[in-house]
Amino acid sequence: MLVVMQATASPADVERVCEAIREMGYQPLPMPGAQLTTVGLVGNDRRVDGSHIEALPGVSEVIYVSSPFKQVSREWRQANTLVTIAPGVTFGGPDVPVIAGPCSVESEQQIMAAAHTVKAAGAVALRGGAFKPRSSPYSFQGMGRDGLALLRRAKAETGLAIVTEAMDDEGAQLVAEYADCIQIGARNMQNYSLLKTVGRMRTPVMLKRGMAATVQELLLSAEYILSEGNDQVILCERGVRTWDPSSRNMFDLNAIPAVQKLSHLPIIADPSHGTGVRDRVAPMARAAIAAGADGLLIEVHPDPNRALSDGAQSLFPQQFTELMGELVSIAAAIGRRIATLDTR
Amino acid sequence: MLVVMQATASPADVERVCEAIREMGYQPLPMPGAQLTTVGLVGNDRRVDGSHIEALPGVSEVIYVSSPFKQVSREWRQANTLVTIAPGVTFGGPDVPVIAGPCSVESEQQIMAAAHTVKAAGAVALRGGAFKPRSSPYSFQGMGRDGLALLRRAKAETGLAIVTEAMDDEGAQLVAEYADCIQIGARNMQNYSLLKTVGRMRTPVMLKRGMAATVQELLLSAEYILSEGNDQVILCERGVRTWDPSSRNMFDLNAIPAVQKLSHLPIIADPSHGTGVRDRVAPMARAAIAAGADGLLIEVHPDPNRALSDGAQSLFPQQFTELMGELVSIAAAIGRRIATLDTR
Amino acid sequence: MLVVMQATASPADVERVCEAIREMGYQPLPMPGAQLTTVGLVGNDRRVDGSHIEALPGVSEVIYVSSPFKQVSREWRQANTLVTIAPGVTFGGPDVPVIAGPCSVESEQQIMAAAHTVKAAGAVALRGGAFKPRSSPYSFQGMGRDGLALLRRAKAETGLAIVTEAMDDEGAQLVAEYADCIQIGARNMQNYSLLKTVGRMRTPVMLKRGMAATVQELLLSAEYILSEGNDQVILCERGVRTWDPSSRNMFDLNAIPAVQKLSHLPIIADPSHGTGVRDRVAPMARAAIAAGADGLLIEVHPDPNRALSDGAQSLFPQQFTELMGELVSIAAAIGRRIATLDTR
Amino acid sequence: MLVVMQATASPADVERVCEAIREMGYQPLPMPGAQLTTVGLVGNDRRVDGSHIEALPGVSEVIYVSSPFKQVSREWRQANTLVTIAPGVTFGGPDVPVIAGPCSVESEQQIMAAAHTVKAAGAVALRGGAFKPRSSPYSFQGMGRDGLALLRRAKAETGLAIVTEAMDDEGAQLVAEYADCIQIGARNMQNYSLLKTVGRMRTPVMLKRGMAATVQELLLSAEYILSEGNDQVILCERGVRTWDPSSRNMFDLNAIPAVQKLSHLPIIADPSHGTGVRDRVAPMARAAIAAGADGLLIEVHPDPNRALSDGAQSLFPQQFTELMGELVSIAAAIGRRIATLDTR
Repeated sequence: MLVVMQATASPADVERVCEAIREMGYQPLPMPGAQLTTVGLVGNDRRVDGSHIEALPGVSEVIYVSSPFKQVSREWRQANTLVTIAPGVTFGGPDVPVIAGPCSVESEQQIMAAAHTVKAAGAVALRGGAFKPRSSPYSFQGMGRDGLALLRRAKAETGLAIVTEAMDDEGAQLVAEYADCIQIGARNMQNYSLLKTVGRMRTPVMLKRGMAATVQELLLSAEYILSEGNDQVILCERGVRTWDPSSRNMFDLNAIPAVQKLSHLPIIADPSHGTGVRDRVAPMARAAIAAGADGLLIEVHPDPNRALSDGAQSLFPQQFTELMGELVSIAAAIGRRIATLDTR
Repeated sequence: MLVVMQATASPADVERVCEAIREMGYQPLPMPGAQLTTVGLVGNDRRVDGSHIEALPGVSEVIYVSSPFKQVSREWRQANTLVTIAPGVTFGGPDVPVIAGPCSVESEQQIMAAAHTVKAAGAVALRGGAFKPRSSPYSFQGMGRDGLALLRRAKAETGLAIVTEAMDDEGAQLVAEYADCIQIGARNMQNYSLLKTVGRMRTPVMLKRGMAATVQELLLSAEYILSEGNDQVILCERGVRTWDPSSRNMFDLNAIPAVQKLSHLPIIADPSHGTGVRDRVAPMARAAIAAGADGLLIEVHPDPNRALSDGAQSLFPQQFTELMGELVSIAAAIGRRIATLDTR
Repeated sequence: MLVVMQATASPADVERVCEAIREMGYQPLPMPGAQLTTVGLVGNDRRVDGSHIEALPGVSEVIYVSSPFKQVSREWRQANTLVTIAPGVTFGGPDVPVIAGPCSVESEQQIMAAAHTVKAAGAVALRGGAFKPRSSPYSFQGMGRDGLALLRRAKAETGLAIVTEAMDDEGAQLVAEYADCIQIGARNMQNYSLLKTVGRMRTPVMLKRGMAATVQELLLSAEYILSEGNDQVILCERGVRTWDPSSRNMFDLNAIPAVQKLSHLPIIADPSHGTGVRDRVAPMARAAIAAGADGLLIEVHPDPNRALSDGAQSLFPQQFTELMGELVSIAAAIGRRIATLDTR
Repeated sequence: MLVVMQATASPADVERVCEAIREMGYQPLPMPGAQLTTVGLVGNDRRVDGSHIEALPGVSEVIYVSSPFKQVSREWRQANTLVTIAPGVTFGGPDVPVIAGPCSVESEQQIMAAAHTVKAAGAVALRGGAFKPRSSPYSFQGMGRDGLALLRRAKAETGLAIVTEAMDDEGAQLVAEYADCIQIGARNMQNYSLLKTVGRMRTPVMLKRGMAATVQELLLSAEYILSEGNDQVILCERGVRTWDPSSRNMFDLNAIPAVQKLSHLPIIADPSHGTGVRDRVAPMARAAIAAGADGLLIEVHPDPNRALSDGAQSLFPQQFTELMGELVSIAAAIGRRIATLDTR
């Protein structure tokens, strides 16, 4: 922590800051400059809350120079964490798994068709929501436990790993029974009770970035999970709030190298929510792989024109098949490989 | 719902859209224009999800013209909803209640001092968190049930109503036992499980706007609560995400008249989080009252320099007292009155 | 300038940073901490560009602690700058001038009617664009020099001061001939050539905040004007880009106390652009005064339903008259006064 | 244009809107719905300004369904516009030119070294600013005409095309004398006087997206240039304002397919400004190519640690050479080719 004094701060102001730092149990280190004085704090162990110092007389700003996260940081663990959600489906290594499927589980026929389609095109995991967080209480809320049972059946038939969302504690327990990876959606990224719950479980977790969460907040939310004991966490960039009505979201691919530098956790990208428009899913899926994403999450529907949710951003089966071909070439261009069920 | 066709759309494209609308159970109304054709949908009952139509050939855009909310809208109920959290503490009428107190309950001494201070200055309700949603798992997380017990004691001594946050189902039950109003924080604005839980309770709810939630999303989240049966909901503007590092948040006072036009629910403002800096709390509290806010939520600490959280934005007791004097004059200037315990 | 090293930085990395600081002509001051080392730079004179240091091995971040502006800062001049654009029309003192009028000058009849209307209601200056920056080249671009002549005539008849926009060097010279204050619009806030041009003139300048400009960028743009010799600068908050479609702009009233703390220049507010909707102009005008704005800029049109631009946000004459009454009371509540022509 | 009435609008309100549309010279087409009525306007020729209708009684919203641009749209011209800035350096076709070089021209030695370096690595054009728009008036402002002369010399020696920025009318004339393409920077994207000036010239223009410009605003600014007669316009995505301090800008690659769908103009990407951090330039340059960008603009400096501006985001020569190799493979993966001087 560094306390920047105002240019007009008096020596007494500086001393008051030093005193406040001592009261917090640390040692102050004043650093006079040509224009102004800065006071450092020696011995910071990440738990310092200096917000009250910000408001002392003569203080201009308090700057936190230590990163606020611990177990998620590259400093804590240098090597990439590998998160294996099913045999052969590993995130964080050289192979790049693609998870695909519909927004929601709608019926047995739909989810089975989707599963066979995405498997044939090269996906290694199936997505599909049984519990749907919808902005409006009047929108379709998902099939619940029945949807989970259908996902389990799709897994039995195809061998695809299952990734699906949980919205509360009870849902998390259910999802863990039926699926291979619990998705925490953007709207729950800072639902700390839920983060602690999945942190006490052993099932891998995919944590999606909140609508307007900074990279630091995403990592701090992951820290909640790791701090409870579960380090099998996959992060997911899914587009953030934008002021440009030309896109549903702004797809922040900068977050991929940013997270990979700060943390050992894998980060994947969701170009379907990241764009919100079918025509842009393929270019942005390619871009995500080129940027170094550790996986992809893509909405594919056997019949998008009849989807109960997110029809506009779901790929047609044929489009997904073509995209997978392009992704294989792009991964090769940067020395990686799209994961296949054959590699298991 | 209106479907805007591309200028280059063929008659077959238009017919396909009409067909899709008929399949959804509605009647299409094509409207040819000089440049392009628009297709209206007759009989929309707010449940229409036309996202798959967005992706049909020749479609440029789908525009939703009916508002997506129902029970929260002014069309549903013309008159303001009055939310009374304790005898005499009513939001939505001509009197404007001020809720004040520390960010967190820290100790008996602290919360009692705070309660007496804010009461003396004219507040009618006490705030103070027992459960704290903190970005980092290593920050102070609140005193829990012990904090709630202290709030109850503060109420017994001062007569102030109690407003405090719940972060999950269990917490909501506890808060309802001890307090007069359950606060749902910004991070949980779209935690739909929690919204449904408090919707099934009878305790008034204060719903804070999410970090980057639109006014429409805020109202839809309130709709979740009303749709479960609880219409005692107070909305709260508390600042939103900003790209300007000069402020912790951008305080969106436009939201106050915007909400008041669209909805019958009261909306209050939190200038402490809305600014993040003590020096700006007073000007923005005054601005919120001048803009027509139905109440205020202000952080006041008996000794801000020793606060365990949010010290930099907490007012000193003396500052709060002065501010209350200004607020009384400003409320009078627009024909309202700051609520007082005497009015009970 | 402070260079924060990574926790894993080696002593050689630290030395390389010190060396780079010495090469820049300053003295490095390394400050070892428990987790990481910080290196300060002694003698910073605001001209340091340390961006290349950010990229040296082992460097985590470069933090600028000195404010980058000079002549606009409160440190350079403690007392408020008073900007007088016409006898009695002074910004920055206790009296608060209101500038009102139509978006564009459209005809002699329109601007004369507008001038008499706003004068009768208590405004002391008339706004009205003769050169209009429009997003589309096909929108009405203003009456040009003819519009300026009409503004001059309005001044002759009413005694109102004239504020109008210039978009380029030639326009600035023309505006200076005809008007009392040159407005630089949001889109030109970082048109540095134009800023330098008006900086070399002696006419007062009103500088509007750019669509997504930070407070610091606004002040740096003002610094361009002051650094050329013209210190008669009024800043103007006019709403910034928002991701919430419920408002045309987000009206950032936090900027008012923020600017007043950092700078001695007056700052006014434009609730018409700040909201974009007629119904919200009055609440936000009141809020701006309550927040401490040093003036207001309000769109009023004699017949808004026939306005050539910005009709939706222009007040009807009667609305403006009522608003002025409320503003008088609110200004009084905070110890200020709405300026009147009588005070000249 | 569509006028959406409130659910509570009376028949008289609807008739008043119809009347207003007739007064504008168009024909109204009312469309009654179950919940509310919509009124269409027949004969819209893009010049309609309906903002005053927005404020008529009973009106909820005015929606513009015709796109506001004309000559830049795909509807105006189906085929891609090819912009050739020098023999063999063409944007908009299958080959993808890379423009590289330092932020600023600093000295003869520096710019020559840069030119030879980027040519050897495969770039076909040289960038380098002679006029620099800097937030602070105290930062290095560029070498001016001397810088242009050095760029011309670099072209003579290497055969690279020259791209450099102009900030005002005079600068634009100078740049046109010395360079192959005039860059209009982000801060001047809505400097309409400058846009009109370059629109009357015959030199190709590269128009960078403003700091918070929507895709529609970017296209409307290009429309200013085309409407004056110059259709040799290259658009450039360079990152936009973000609330996430982890990045200097948010790099909006969604804009690439968005622009390509709406317009026939080529769009390139600038990953140096788009990220602001050297380590992320290569991943984002790869991502931009994978997303379909029609060119790249990359900062490369012979000695970034001594750069006078933007050192932190400039690549070392060796990094750029490696990156070019990767780009060749990624372009091939999507059926395109990185342009080479050999292809001339």
